[in-house]
Amino acid sequence: MAATVYILNGPNLNLLGQREPEIYGRDTLADVEARCRRIAERAGLELVFRQSNAEHELVDWIQEGRKSAGLIINGAGFSYHSVAILDALKTCECPVIEVHISNIHRRDEDWRADSLLTAATKGMITGLGVHGYELALAHIVRLTEDQ
Amino acid sequence: MAATVYILNGPNLNLLGQREPEIYGRDTLADVEARCRRIAERAGLELVFRQSNAEHELVDWIQEGRKSAGLIINGAGFSYHSVAILDALKTCECPVIEVHISNIHRRDEDWRADSLLTAATKGMITGLGVHGYELALAHIVRLTEDQ
Amino acid sequence: MAATVYILNGPNLNLLGQREPEIYGRDTLADVEARCRRIAERAGLELVFRQSNAEHELVDWIQEGRKSAGLIINGAGFSYHSVAILDALKTCECPVIEVHISNIHRRDEDWRADSLLTAATKGMITGLGVHGYELALAHIVRLTEDQ
Amino acid sequence: MAATVYILNGPNLNLLGQREPEIYGRDTLADVEARCRRIAERAGLELVFRQSNAEHELVDWIQEGRKSAGLIINGAGFSYHSVAILDALKTCECPVIEVHISNIHRRDEDWRADSLLTAATKGMITGLGVHGYELALAHIVRLTEDQ
Amino acid sequence: MAATVYILNGPNLNLLGQREPEIYGRDTLADVEARCRRIAERAGLELVFRQSNAEHELVDWIQEGRKSAGLIINGAGFSYHSVAILDALKTCECPVIEVHISNIHRRDEDWRADSLLTAATKGMITGLGVHGYELALAHIVRLTEDQ
Amino acid sequence: MAATVYILNGPNLNLLGQREPEIYGRDTLADVEARCRRIAERAGLELVFRQSNAEHELVDWIQEGRKSAGLIINGAGFSYHSVAILDALKTCECPVIEVHISNIHRRDEDWRADSLLTAATKGMITGLGVHGYELALAHIVRLTEDQ
Amino acid sequence: MAATVYILNGPNLNLLGQREPEIYGRDTLADVEARCRRIAERAGLELVFRQSNAEHELVDWIQEGRKSAGLIINGAGFSYHSVAILDALKTCECPVIEVHISNIHRRDEDWRADSLLTAATKGMITGLGVHGYELALAHIVRLTEDQ
Amino acid sequence: MAATVYILNGPNLNLLGQREPEIYGRDTLADVEARCRRIAERAGLELVFRQSNAEHELVDWIQEGRKSAGLIINGAGFSYHSVAILDALKTCECPVIEVHISNIHRRDEDWRADSLLTAATKGMITGLGVHGYELALAHIVRLTEDQ
Amino acid sequence: MAATVYILNGPNLNLLGQREPEIYGRDTLADVEARCRRIAERAGLELVFRQSNAEHELVDWIQEGRKSAGLIINGAGFSYHSVAILDALKTCECPVIEVHISNIHRRDEDWRADSLLTAATKGMITGLGVHGYELALAHIVRLTEDQ
Amino acid sequence: MAATVYILNGPNLNLLGQREPEIYGRDTLADVEARCRRIAERAGLELVFRQSNAEHELVDWIQEGRKSAGLIINGAGFSYHSVAILDALKTCECPVIEVHISNIHRRDEDWRADSLLTAATKGMITGLGVHGYELALAHIVRLTEDQ
Amino acid sequence: MAATVYILNGPNLNLLGQREPEIYGRDTLADVEARCRRIAERAGLELVFRQSNAEHELVDWIQEGRKSAGLIINGAGFSYHSVAILDALKTCECPVIEVHISNIHRRDEDWRADSLLTAATKGMITGLGVHGYELALAHIVRLTEDQ
Amino acid sequence: MAATVYILNGPNLNLLGQREPEIYGRDTLADVEARCRRIAERAGLELVFRQSNAEHELVDWIQEGRKSAGLIINGAGFSYHSVAILDALKTCECPVIEVHISNIHRRDEDWRADSLLTAATKGMITGLGVHGYELALAHIVRLTEDQ
Repeated sequence: MAATVYILNGPNLNLLGQREPEIYGRDTLADVEARCRRIAERAGLELVFRQSNAEHELVDWIQEGRKSAGLIINGAGFSYHSVAILDALKTCECPVIEVHISNIHRRDEDWRADSLLTAATKGMITGLGVHGYELALAHIVRLTEDQ
Repeated sequence: MAATVYILNGPNLNLLGQREPEIYGRDTLADVEARCRRIAERAGLELVFRQSNAEHELVDWIQEGRKSAGLIINGAGFSYHSVAILDALKTCECPVIEVHISNIHRRDEDWRADSLLTAATKGMITGLGVHGYELALAHIVRLTEDQ
Repeated sequence: MAATVYILNGPNLNLLGQREPEIYGRDTLADVEARCRRIAERAGLELVFRQSNAEHELVDWIQEGRKSAGLIINGAGFSYHSVAILDALKTCECPVIEVHISNIHRRDEDWRADSLLTAATKGMITGLGVHGYELALAHIVRLTEDQ
Repeated sequence: MAATVYILNGPNLNLLGQREPEIYGRDTLADVEARCRRIAERAGLELVFRQSNAEHELVDWIQEGRKSAGLIINGAGFSYHSVAILDALKTCECPVIEVHISNIHRRDEDWRADSLLTAATKGMITGLGVHGYELALAHIVRLTEDQ
Repeated sequence: MAATVYILNGPNLNLLGQREPEIYGRDTLADVEARCRRIAERAGLELVFRQSNAEHELVDWIQEGRKSAGLIINGAGFSYHSVAILDALKTCECPVIEVHISNIHRRDEDWRADSLLTAATKGMITGLGVHGYELALAHIVRLTEDQ
Repeated sequence: MAATVYILNGPNLNLLGQREPEIYGRDTLADVEARCRRIAERAGLELVFRQSNAEHELVDWIQEGRKSAGLIINGAGFSYHSVAILDALKTCECPVIEVHISNIHRRDEDWRADSLLTAATKGMITGLGVHGYELALAHIVRLTEDQ
Repeated sequence: MAATVYILNGPNLNLLGQREPEIYGRDTLADVEARCRRIAERAGLELVFRQSNAEHELVDWIQEGRKSAGLIINGAGFSYHSVAILDALKTCECPVIEVHISNIHRRDEDWRADSLLTAATKGMITGLGVHGYELALAHIVRLTEDQ
Repeated sequence: MAATVYILNGPNLNLLGQREPEIYGRDTLADVEARCRRIAERAGLELVFRQSNAEHELVDWIQEGRKSAGLIINGAGFSYHSVAILDALKTCECPVIEVHISNIHRRDEDWRADSLLTAATKGMITGLGVHGYELALAHIVRLTEDQ
Repeated sequence: MAATVYILNGPNLNLLGQREPEIYGRDTLADVEARCRRIAERAGLELVFRQSNAEHELVDWIQEGRKSAGLIINGAGFSYHSVAILDALKTCECPVIEVHISNIHRRDEDWRADSLLTAATKGMITGLGVHGYELALAHIVRLTEDQ
Repeated sequence: MAATVYILNGPNLNLLGQREPEIYGRDTLADVEARCRRIAERAGLELVFRQSNAEHELVDWIQEGRKSAGLIINGAGFSYHSVAILDALKTCECPVIEVHISNIHRRDEDWRADSLLTAATKGMITGLGVHGYELALAHIVRLTEDQ
Repeated sequence: MAATVYILNGPNLNLLGQREPEIYGRDTLADVEARCRRIAERAGLELVFRQSNAEHELVDWIQEGRKSAGLIINGAGFSYHSVAILDALKTCECPVIEVHISNIHRRDEDWRADSLLTAATKGMITGLGVHGYELALAHIVRLTEDQ
Repeated sequence: MAATVYILNGPNLNLLGQREPEIYGRDTLADVEARCRRIAERAGLELVFRQSNAEHELVDWIQEGRKSAGLIINGAGFSYHSVAILDALKTCECPVIEVHISNIHRRDEDWRADSLLTAATKGMITGLGVHGYELALAHIVRLTEDQ
């Protein structure tokens, strides 16, 4: 049975491509999913790709995926204060990678530079646009190959 | 077809009139809604008036109303940390006005003075009791008349 | 004898309409006064409407109006440090409402978000342009009707 | 009719006993519930014992229990930022006691030392393991006896 | 030979019951001692119960009790700055529990919320009145039973 | 020719006795002046006793009195930010004593505890009511006797 | 029987007159006591005048004098962190006045400007040298006369 | 008609040369004016040179000179908190240069290092004594020549 | 002529593989270079790969590469305070990507979480080990393909 | 033999005129040097004018020039953290003047407002463009004439 | 008569060698005293070597030794807040050296890095284990030889 | 072959003895070296003694000496921000001791109290003048003897 990778997306990312394209680009979340599916397929991995505006759904999904091969999360607005998500990520036994589409260190609001979730992640890719999802997935693939 | 205005209310406002009346007054949310409906009617505007204890419902409703004629929000407890709501408000193409029933600058807890949501709003009315809703709506009416 | 309402304006508001119109709009203080006079008249209220660049004049006028039916103040530059004006407002026995034309929570300088005067006011209207004066006055009218 | 006590548990506590047992011990939430039921029974009290990963469910349950004989809450990850829960607790007319299984003052992250919810509680028991639930309940029992 | 438990009380607790009864209740320290003696007896434990206004006496007593079955401390005014007591507690090989009669997180002075001593304790009971001593002792009893 | 002492009073002190008597007492500034005149007379000193709501008048008067036998100032609202008054006081060659009627360290607003003017004064009397003026004057008298 | 006033002095004040005379002057504590005794005598008051380097002695003495006619304290080095003394002062039913010989707001170390004890005192005299003791006593005398 | 340059001086600068000459030097403001007049004359510029202890006069004069060829301001004590002057400077359409006689970055009080006015000025000359006025004027001359 | 990419490494990275391998892994910088050369070759790009312990060399190299196809920098110890490198990066007309081998948000020292250089970069990859270099290079390749 | 003046320039100033001309203008460092040489010549002074990207070269040059007639430094990126340069400047027996081309108090990054070097300089000219060099040199000339 | 050196030890140092030997080593305070006595003897100095858990005893002993040849203090837990000890040390006319066995800059608690007592000492030796006492004594010996 | 000890000196220490002798004394670095050589010789140790104004040279030398018998460093101006040196010291397998000639905790500038380098050192000697070098070396000698 193929190993599974989770890619989870936080609030308002359902509007990706429609809102503030000068910051987030014109790709929709469906475009991102399609590109990630191709990478996963090539690597023989199952892919779970979801989005929610509800914190508790993300908590449930992280608990569901905590023993998978890897979990990639773009916490969006939940990255800055959701201890519930942080604590869920801390229960993960797989590597967790955080992705942010824009460079969180250069947003207008200072507090966007400090994601709370990093305390439970292996690493972060920020500012490389939606390409960041693919690079994070490439890293999970590399880790599964290294084992 | 009439233009629509959204008035959205955050957590615990369902108890308005029952809880701490010396701070929030004795009017219930239904009383407020009734008065706002009268103003909207007179101005020929549709009114969507809702309350929820769930952050994600407010995010969904804001996304729904982001192209309306105006959006009035009393974020209540979500005003201080909900980046998800802030980010949803940032996608709005209509004017957004924040209303607080009590004067948030004079509450016992210092942090109540700083609403996170102001970063995405045109302005705020605070401390004028439930009358603040009517004044905010009057401002939306004025803006629609000015166009 | 008609009850009186005071509307007091702080420093540099004498230039309203001439300076930074993209922030403050093109209405002059005389335009604002005219519109407020119409509302006051309709409600059967006297209106005292003044502007000064001198802190001590504002202190004197607040002391003069501290037993009136209501006092509306746009402290402008004095809002951020004038303890003298704050202390004068604290002697008021009537409701005091603070008006700011632009949204003080979204100005470039962080400190503009925290008006010192709020500690002595019933509430604040900020960011609704010069319309804020009319809404504040409407609130005073409502309060006098409620008595 | 017997008086009721509410014991409410926040996010990720459904994993109790499975995750980080060196911090939280090996008892599951069902074990804790069982022991509390025995105490409540002996004292002739009804017990409502629930867990949720969703903030709004906790808000709803607190509103439901606000006139009960007592409410015990382990807010878990919501303890640090949920103003919605804080405001719901403030509407309670019964004593509220906060329980934390580990000592929140000695966790790696500094901010875990400061629960936001304490502003609405009578007291807190922290660091005494799952035994803390029983001690809190013993205190509610004592309070009902004292009346 | 029976195992011993230490209950140590800091400065001004000799006035318990006489001073600010609306905060600390009407029980005297002798009342508290009597109730704790009954619990200890029932559990077959020796009880050392002392109070001092002198920091050095508390340091000496903690050193004396550092190998006992358990140590309960209400550091009172010394809780906020006494590194000498903190360092003495750190030498303890037995579990240490901190008790505060009032809820230290809700006192007028902010700094009372942060006891320095927690860095050397297993846990804390705060705000449950003098009943907190009995609950802490009940926890020590449970721990001795678990061994 | 008799030596002169200056007693200068800042904004809103003209309302002394009328406003917030539970904080400031029922004596008017004229009562205070009368009592100080009696002390000065007995000591053979001229007394200049003035009040102003205008910062620049206080600056002018301090410059006028900077070579007198002593200067007593109750800066009131100017105590917290007026660098102009601070700098004027720094030019004084006589001892300067600061008087505050209420205890500035115990006012509701934290910032009232830190008078900017202390950087230019010999000492301060705070919280002893209007009696503080007399004690400050007694100290100036003592200093003139010591020379 | 004559009413009693307590004057209590903190650590190192036994060296008064010998150490750093350019800051503290050349009067010894015995000189100060003598002058205060004269004032007390004239007013028909008993005077208790003591000094200690031990915090617990000061706590004991304050408890002893908490129902006297008045208590004057120069906490010296204990003024900045002794919560034990602060809490003892809070039990006082008589007026408490704090005296500091030098101006604590102008010492080299910033933290000397903020005495912790002020939270439990009626007022403070600082920077007027040892004369401050006499002025504080004069104030107690005035208060006893006013009753 | 000759272009005009404004040089405006804040509070206490009327004492220049008399007060703290080791910091500010022995030149009087009249000396400075004389030297500046010579430079202006040579460059064919009108010079308005004024001093006031009153903030509102400075605000009025800045408004008067806001369309001149250049404005040089030594705000003195008003530099650190006067938002009224800052806002007046922001209305200027000419270049504004700030001059400080002593080096504000090296004064005893830390806050003197941060002039509030810089937010509305082109640049600053600080610490070069009264020569700074001449250099600032030389810069205005250069700017007028460059046009 | 092939486009060039710069990969620049800061101080102590010459010891990579020898020092703290549990944090940084066992690959040497030569290993990293070799893998990057393979990627660059495949993409038809020139690769400049250098390391220095000297800040000024890095400044020179950045100036040299500021018009290249892309610049990848691991500033190591210079990331936290080198304004000289920050300013050099700001002169770059090509995309700049920051790489950190370990997760800078989870190092023992808090300040390591905030790289000063991010103010001049497009994005960052942190915590993905030496694989981060390859991913960053893959992103530059993607950008050159997108043009 | 003619007295010598040193003008030293920090990192990235070699790119002056090429980089961000809207902030720094279009003059190159060679243009600045040429204009300064003309002033020095007229005043009969030797001029040493240098630039380096290396902190240690600047330290060496400052040590070399510490007994010259005057030293002008634009520390550029080193102004904010180089204690080595600060300490070298502190060894100077000649007047040191700091020049910044743009107004460091108005740059995007807050920390640019606080040059560390000011602790060792007589004064600063900031925001007057490259003309600041000439004005600083004019001040050195004036100082040599005054001797 | 031989000159005397004081070595004073603060609270909990009586347990040296028994508690946390991985931090403080296995030498007891008696071992340290023995080694110091040998050094003092060889240098012809009297040695007073004491330990106390009571702050007031340390204050008394410092006053006793303030005119000795030198005073070495390991304030232990009192180093962080005892203003009484700081003030006593300030009365010393002999050199005072602070010794800490472990490196106070690297302890888990941040505040241990800042000893309050350094404001009254010539220097500090920290982290060199109990050898630090001998080195400090060697320095006193050198100072007495230099005279 | 003899074991080697490194003594490395940071920027501006080449001026030791010439600059600010009231702080640093009159000994030159050559004097210090001579005295250290005598101690090393007696202990049969090689001594490397160097100074540099260049950060990168110090980094290189530390890397060179990281497996020696001991390394003593006076980082001078680099002690406060050089992460490059800190990281180099962290690679050392030998004990590292920090020496500061003056007491860094008592310098005028607050930030001099906190050396960044202590995070990588065994201990520090500060304020004991150039004698500190000899004492640090004596400690290394003792450590080599203890092995």
